[in-house]
Amino acid sequence: MERRLIEKIRNITQARSTFGGSGPKWIKKAIGDDCAELAVTPSANVLLTTDTMVEGIHFSFTYFTPFQLGKKLASVNLSDIAAMGGVPKAALLNLEVPDTLRDPGLNFWNEFAKGLGERLSEFSTVLVGGDTVREPGKRLGLTLTIMGEIEKGGAVYRNGAKRGELIYCSGYLGEGSCGYEILMRKGIKLPLPLKRHLIRRHLDPVPRVHLGRLLSRLGASSMIDVSDGIATDLAHVATQSGLCALISKSRLPISRALRIGAKAMGKDPVAFALFGGEDFELVWTISPNMKREMEKEVSRLLGHPPFFLGVMKEGQGVLLEGNSTTQDITYRGYEH
Amino acid sequence: MERRLIEKIRNITQARSTFGGSGPKWIKKAIGDDCAELAVTPSANVLLTTDTMVEGIHFSFTYFTPFQLGKKLASVNLSDIAAMGGVPKAALLNLEVPDTLRDPGLNFWNEFAKGLGERLSEFSTVLVGGDTVREPGKRLGLTLTIMGEIEKGGAVYRNGAKRGELIYCSGYLGEGSCGYEILMRKGIKLPLPLKRHLIRRHLDPVPRVHLGRLLSRLGASSMIDVSDGIATDLAHVATQSGLCALISKSRLPISRALRIGAKAMGKDPVAFALFGGEDFELVWTISPNMKREMEKEVSRLLGHPPFFLGVMKEGQGVLLEGNSTTQDITYRGYEH
Repeated sequence: MERRLIEKIRNITQARSTFGGSGPKWIKKAIGDDCAELAVTPSANVLLTTDTMVEGIHFSFTYFTPFQLGKKLASVNLSDIAAMGGVPKAALLNLEVPDTLRDPGLNFWNEFAKGLGERLSEFSTVLVGGDTVREPGKRLGLTLTIMGEIEKGGAVYRNGAKRGELIYCSGYLGEGSCGYEILMRKGIKLPLPLKRHLIRRHLDPVPRVHLGRLLSRLGASSMIDVSDGIATDLAHVATQSGLCALISKSRLPISRALRIGAKAMGKDPVAFALFGGEDFELVWTISPNMKREMEKEVSRLLGHPPFFLGVMKEGQGVLLEGNSTTQDITYRGYEH
Repeated sequence: MERRLIEKIRNITQARSTFGGSGPKWIKKAIGDDCAELAVTPSANVLLTTDTMVEGIHFSFTYFTPFQLGKKLASVNLSDIAAMGGVPKAALLNLEVPDTLRDPGLNFWNEFAKGLGERLSEFSTVLVGGDTVREPGKRLGLTLTIMGEIEKGGAVYRNGAKRGELIYCSGYLGEGSCGYEILMRKGIKLPLPLKRHLIRRHLDPVPRVHLGRLLSRLGASSMIDVSDGIATDLAHVATQSGLCALISKSRLPISRALRIGAKAMGKDPVAFALFGGEDFELVWTISPNMKREMEKEVSRLLGHPPFFLGVMKEGQGVLLEGNSTTQDITYRGYEH
């Protein structure tokens, strides 16, 4: 079982990449031997990241197609490479397969592999290995591990923020978690294009790999991707940097779509923006000296300016500054 | 949940290593950021391997202690690095945790981490990252991914065997699968030390990392670790090398312990040796020119000579040569 399924998925993902048959030259060995062997650039360090998704916890086939699932599995891992400023290179896929999905000939695996391959090859990442095991229950389990590269000294950590630096975010927050609630609750009345947009933000987040590279080059001092909600993810940056992140409520990047969606559910859009998980936007800090150049270059890449959120100050945790009150939101957020 | 459990396991495994607090210098970032960042040697290639173990398929707590489980998870992955001739360096751990094991304070996790740490640190391998998710069922799922290094040109693949080369094995075959059957069947009457020995070969296989290094240096032309039974694993070498592996029945490395154990079950020890999985011995091919030097050096390392099994010939598959008949055993073997 093992080899056939992984090889099939590899063939399909590979067929969608721009490298052709045996892949890029730096892949010395991929699937079919004991290990994958990769010739990494001498001047770079290796990045490793891994994420597991379990049916019934992270996804359900009542609202995910196999294609979307493969794509999202790639996206959440690529987002971690993006958050270090790195270049993704190679991926390993571990599958825990229930008996109902044992047949590699199922269209399910075609679609899954196409989705995985589409997102991986978009960022020139090649599937080089993995493992397939039986799952005695009924739940599909997926683990993707990505190896990337980063120039020596180029990685942007969570602990590098400095006092007085500016905090930015790459896009709207909370749309993904609002889309997830729309999927869960059904029957929410919303204009169809808006509903589709919010749902797509949950099903198909786009990892900010090119932006991560740019911010590494521009000298961002710290960076993280928003996976558990900004109240939690920015708390990692604040805590690890030994500072306080003071963000402004009026500056929160809340879209019109989120306002309308939240209203339809009788919920506060601010709660989605602060505590909603899986936005996969990047949040970074940077010296005020770099403000103009960074805003210009990021605008050129994204097609819109980045959102300014606040500043790093003495203290600890994450504070949300409103019109009259300031609220401690440290580590409040979404848990899967 | 995620961070606490992984950090706890990391702290315990780290405490058992010889590197001390923050680990070796080549680890730039480990757990606590988006990715692990590793400064690999410029002259080496990177090796990646990954294995998943699922409760109820690969292990059961009716016969595995958490300590043994952690150790075995490390061993099966290290064995894949060994089979390429590489040096293991860094590991990622993914946990799918059922609700009964959610508390990181459980002694279970202490013991698991100690076992994992003992085996990893025995081979100077450091846990640098991972992911923890809830498992909605009752089964613990474990994935370990190991990154290793190999000198450029030093990796020993499965497809390198040449006609006329000799086939060797590092140790007795079939003991692990015999031990597994003893665990499954219970009530098998055997002298206790012998029973313990066979069971230990299933619960605690030792990865042949140092031997893999030596054989890479000595120019072994192909190598694999015996995980699915030699009939299957040697078939990979034969098929990928475009040759036939002709092995001699009388040369099969069958121990006195296996003979006695198999007899007590009314089974053929040869079947255990050929088709039994999880021996984690290395099997390699090498030019006859290197026979004397290789045998001498391997004997010095292992404390006993390697077992000569047969030769690579024109043809395909794996043939077992008996006194009067020759049997095709290609890809017959153990499936988990």
